[in-house]
Amino acid sequence: MTTARKPETSLPFLDATVRVRYAETDQMGVVYHANYLVWLEVGRVELMRSLGAEYKQMETADDCHIVVVEAHCRYHKSARYDEVLRIRTRVSEAHSRSIHFQYEVWRDADNQLLATGETKHVICGKDGRPKHLPEKYRDLFTTTAPPCEPA
Amino acid sequence: MTTARKPETSLPFLDATVRVRYAETDQMGVVYHANYLVWLEVGRVELMRSLGAEYKQMETADDCHIVVVEAHCRYHKSARYDEVLRIRTRVSEAHSRSIHFQYEVWRDADNQLLATGETKHVICGKDGRPKHLPEKYRDLFTTTAPPCEPA
Amino acid sequence: MTTARKPETSLPFLDATVRVRYAETDQMGVVYHANYLVWLEVGRVELMRSLGAEYKQMETADDCHIVVVEAHCRYHKSARYDEVLRIRTRVSEAHSRSIHFQYEVWRDADNQLLATGETKHVICGKDGRPKHLPEKYRDLFTTTAPPCEPA
Amino acid sequence: MTTARKPETSLPFLDATVRVRYAETDQMGVVYHANYLVWLEVGRVELMRSLGAEYKQMETADDCHIVVVEAHCRYHKSARYDEVLRIRTRVSEAHSRSIHFQYEVWRDADNQLLATGETKHVICGKDGRPKHLPEKYRDLFTTTAPPCEPA
Repeated sequence: MTTARKPETSLPFLDATVRVRYAETDQMGVVYHANYLVWLEVGRVELMRSLGAEYKQMETADDCHIVVVEAHCRYHKSARYDEVLRIRTRVSEAHSRSIHFQYEVWRDADNQLLATGETKHVICGKDGRPKHLPEKYRDLFTTTAPPCEPA
Repeated sequence: MTTARKPETSLPFLDATVRVRYAETDQMGVVYHANYLVWLEVGRVELMRSLGAEYKQMETADDCHIVVVEAHCRYHKSARYDEVLRIRTRVSEAHSRSIHFQYEVWRDADNQLLATGETKHVICGKDGRPKHLPEKYRDLFTTTAPPCEPA
Repeated sequence: MTTARKPETSLPFLDATVRVRYAETDQMGVVYHANYLVWLEVGRVELMRSLGAEYKQMETADDCHIVVVEAHCRYHKSARYDEVLRIRTRVSEAHSRSIHFQYEVWRDADNQLLATGETKHVICGKDGRPKHLPEKYRDLFTTTAPPCEPA
Repeated sequence: MTTARKPETSLPFLDATVRVRYAETDQMGVVYHANYLVWLEVGRVELMRSLGAEYKQMETADDCHIVVVEAHCRYHKSARYDEVLRIRTRVSEAHSRSIHFQYEVWRDADNQLLATGETKHVICGKDGRPKHLPEKYRDLFTTTAPPCEPA
């Protein structure tokens, strides 16, 4: 049975930090929009690390790949070269075969919210076939969540 | 007054072609998901060119920048190295200050749908301030659309 | 015995075409320099294809990876958004375990030379260990070259 | 008169740190080679910052752009996903109109040298025309260098 956990109010955000690289800007003088998705991944990986799950290890030791099936980003204000940004990330839903993440991108200097995003992922083996998230990881992603409810 | 045009059934898709570059793959052996947004832009620019609007010219001659405010992509099947893809793009909504585009990414060899996406844009000057899309371009984006209705 | 072929004057350049993407520009208003290396690869792959060697096939069917061990690029003039570029590529040296390529990047509109480059590669298996280029490919890379000489 | 400073033995390296992103890997399972040039720039910018020159400020306040005219990289060992790397950077030559940098990329975990590189730059205004490096910056880049000699 697939159980869903919707820890909307409970699972905390983790902050990861990036500094905007020159390569990430475009001729508008701001960051090119596709690069935010790269930062969201930095946020996701650091959140997992903080929860005790090293993604590199998940892939190599557990044949557990967290594959992106949907990405959504809203751009409120432009990030610019050399700015320090905080990528705030949290698990928004954790099922046995999928995980959803929520993100906020903040400019550190003036605490402005630059972008928000969500990504949805399924768990796959190296062969690309869906599989269950190993139990040990599922616990990590939902440790502070309320009692699970049916999906 | 802002008028909206919802040419859902009428405005045609344009096909642009890209071939997957090695740089666009990741260690899963497939294309890294953020690169699809770069292709959507290729599709968008080629659609505009086919409609008579060269985007480079829009920026330099008309101070008209089509800035991404929202991007959404769903990944159905993986694109792989060296595959030829068709980026199908059409205008889904054209307002006086904003344009929405819809996309489909197809693998050419076996005609499989790999991804779908939408992007929303506002028109801005170089200074980042919103402005109206110059009239000449608005006509181009909606020539085959049904009579406009209130937004 | 390793034999070297130095077809300096004989092996022809092949032209591949790319159009500069918005994502490839930076806030200077020109193409970010690292992206030229991505184009050199486009040139290299298309040269190989024209010679009868599909690189994708080389990797998957022959476990033959052409790994970059050195890259050098000189930037003469800036490439800009939406410009059509010709990436001219040729084999400059072909040994049994390594291949060198030479490149020129030309702007198509006014036939200006924008950049020149060289890359050096060794042949490796998936395991990263150096190996000989399979005989069938070596012939392809040197078909129009003068008689081989000792390295 | 142009004076050259060749501080080979005197100007120290500065270490900047990057962690390899998933986006930077390719289907060989290692980092795509063009991404090293992006890291070299991270090293360059952090070196300048440590010397008292914020590059963002150089561009906006002093119309002083350090444009890449040549880049050279040798790849010794592969960088892999999630590895922490030290980008060691120093000024190798500082002239009135040009600066050269040297780089080493080290894997932090086992202190292995992965790559070495050099980049050459000219000083330009926003208009792309060469200009002299403002005096205040020239001093910074050569503070610990031996007495200058003619170029």
